[in-house]
Amino acid sequence: MIFATDDPEVLWVHSKDQATALNGKKKVAINQKGYYTNHISSLLFQYLNSQDVATHFLSLESDTDVLVKRLKMMPLEVVVRNFASGHFVSRFAVPNMLKLNPPVQEFYYKSDELDDPMINDSQIIALKIADEQQIKVLKTKALKINESLKALFEQIKIDLVDIKFEFGITKTGELVLGDELSPDNMRLVDQETGKSLDKDVFRKETGNLLDGYAVVLDRLQQKIGE
Amino acid sequence: MIFATDDPEVLWVHSKDQATALNGKKKVAINQKGYYTNHISSLLFQYLNSQDVATHFLSLESDTDVLVKRLKMMPLEVVVRNFASGHFVSRFAVPNMLKLNPPVQEFYYKSDELDDPMINDSQIIALKIADEQQIKVLKTKALKINESLKALFEQIKIDLVDIKFEFGITKTGELVLGDELSPDNMRLVDQETGKSLDKDVFRKETGNLLDGYAVVLDRLQQKIGE
Ligand SMILES: Nc1ncnc2c1ncn2[C@@H]1O[C@H](COP(=O)(O)OP(=O)(O)O)[C@@H](O)[C@H]1O
Ligand SMILES: Nc1ncnc2c1ncn2[C@@H]1O[C@H](COP(=O)(O)OP(=O)(O)O)[C@@H](O)[C@H]1O
Ligand SMILES: [Mg+2]
Ligand SMILES: [Mg+2]
Repeated sequence: MIFATDDPEVLWVHSKDQATALNGKKKVAINQKGYYTNHISSLLFQYLNSQDVATHFLSLESDTDVLVKRLKMMPLEVVVRNFASGHFVSRFAVPNMLKLNPPVQEFYYKSDELDDPMINDSQIIALKIADEQQIKVLKTKALKINESLKALFEQIKIDLVDIKFEFGITKTGELVLGDELSPDNMRLVDQETGKSLDKDVFRKETGNLLDGYAVVLDRLQQKIGE
Repeated sequence: MIFATDDPEVLWVHSKDQATALNGKKKVAINQKGYYTNHISSLLFQYLNSQDVATHFLSLESDTDVLVKRLKMMPLEVVVRNFASGHFVSRFAVPNMLKLNPPVQEFYYKSDELDDPMINDSQIIALKIADEQQIKVLKTKALKINESLKALFEQIKIDLVDIKFEFGITKTGELVLGDELSPDNMRLVDQETGKSLDKDVFRKETGNLLDGYAVVLDRLQQKIGE
């Protein structure tokens, strides 16, 4: 949930104790979930800021709250895939976890009514969602951030399978990474156990969602926490 | 239907008296249909050849048959849209017949089992269907052929709404236009009456399919027939 603050350029983001799937059709309360997503997301945004990747992240305010720069969001989900999974597997009948090198990059048009359809560059331009130059920047940034996070997760023995980004534009016209960066928005697999450490556990109901989130937070804190 | 000939580099294409829709699930015999699609397609291929667009077309052999160069087909449908219609309208909730300028270009992965899913450049490369250079050539050629045919139809008072191409590679490695070019593969609207002159009449069962095909063939023959 996003709230205004005294400063019109700053927003307050609260991470809820709630899990959703199937475009919001499945919704369940999960105690402590906000704690985990908020801390994981904050660590990852701080890491990216330290790597000179421009993001909306400003400060961690509590276990469930952060301050971010207000962005004019682009209605696009920018997906990067390092391994085949989920829709990519069903759409193209490729083997699950097939290595994708170079990574695959996709855009989805963020629209609940339309069910977030995949959209290509030419369609994005026709619908005036972004221009050619912005599309190029979105692709370059998404691929670069994917490489940066993939390398970080590699160091804590986790495969970054795929990840969804949302970008927006600052008051000064810069295109920066927004939204959140948690296992709700990426697929993570433990290299040792092969276990899913992300929202797939909730989507497929294969166990306790937060067990995986706790592993991710714990390893990130050991690696990049202060 | 495609048949081999004595020459391994030449194929015999027979246009059937049959209409199909919904990826082949709807199939109906229509007397004389092969006559119209074959003559329209031959005229359009001859026109493109005369405009220095490389195509597979070699010769008209009968009212329902042509000879073409054998191609190694790419499993892609290359779609160009000058106006919004069909899937583009339902996918993105835009007004029917919205003008798309520049035209929208899309790729679909030709696979009956997968129901011809839309596919983007990055996915095409990952699935090894084509490389970056071939994708660039496919786009350039499809847009150029669309412009050429759009201008031709404009001269006979018909709007080319959208069109589907299939390309393949010749023995000498050239990427050329194959398949057929008839109202089965494009949407055409009579500028005077606003009537659909293409397969939509069959898809939506709004009238006699061949009435429109006859108008198209008649006007093309007057313009470019010998
Ligand atoms: N820095 C930001 N400025 C403005 N809006 C943002 C920012 N970061 C994320 N958002 C937007 O806030 C909303 C967060 O709501 P969320 O509960 O994730 O809903 P949903 O993702 O279904 O739209 C999203 O629309 C997201 O794009
Ligand atoms: N010059 C060519 N050489 C080889 N194959 C071709 C050529 N032109 C078209 N084809 C292919 O021939 C087939 C024509 O069959 P068709 O009845 O249209 O079936 P479909 O389009 O459902 O595959 C298509 O697969 C098409 O790609
Ligand atoms: Mg969201
Ligand atoms: Mg065909």
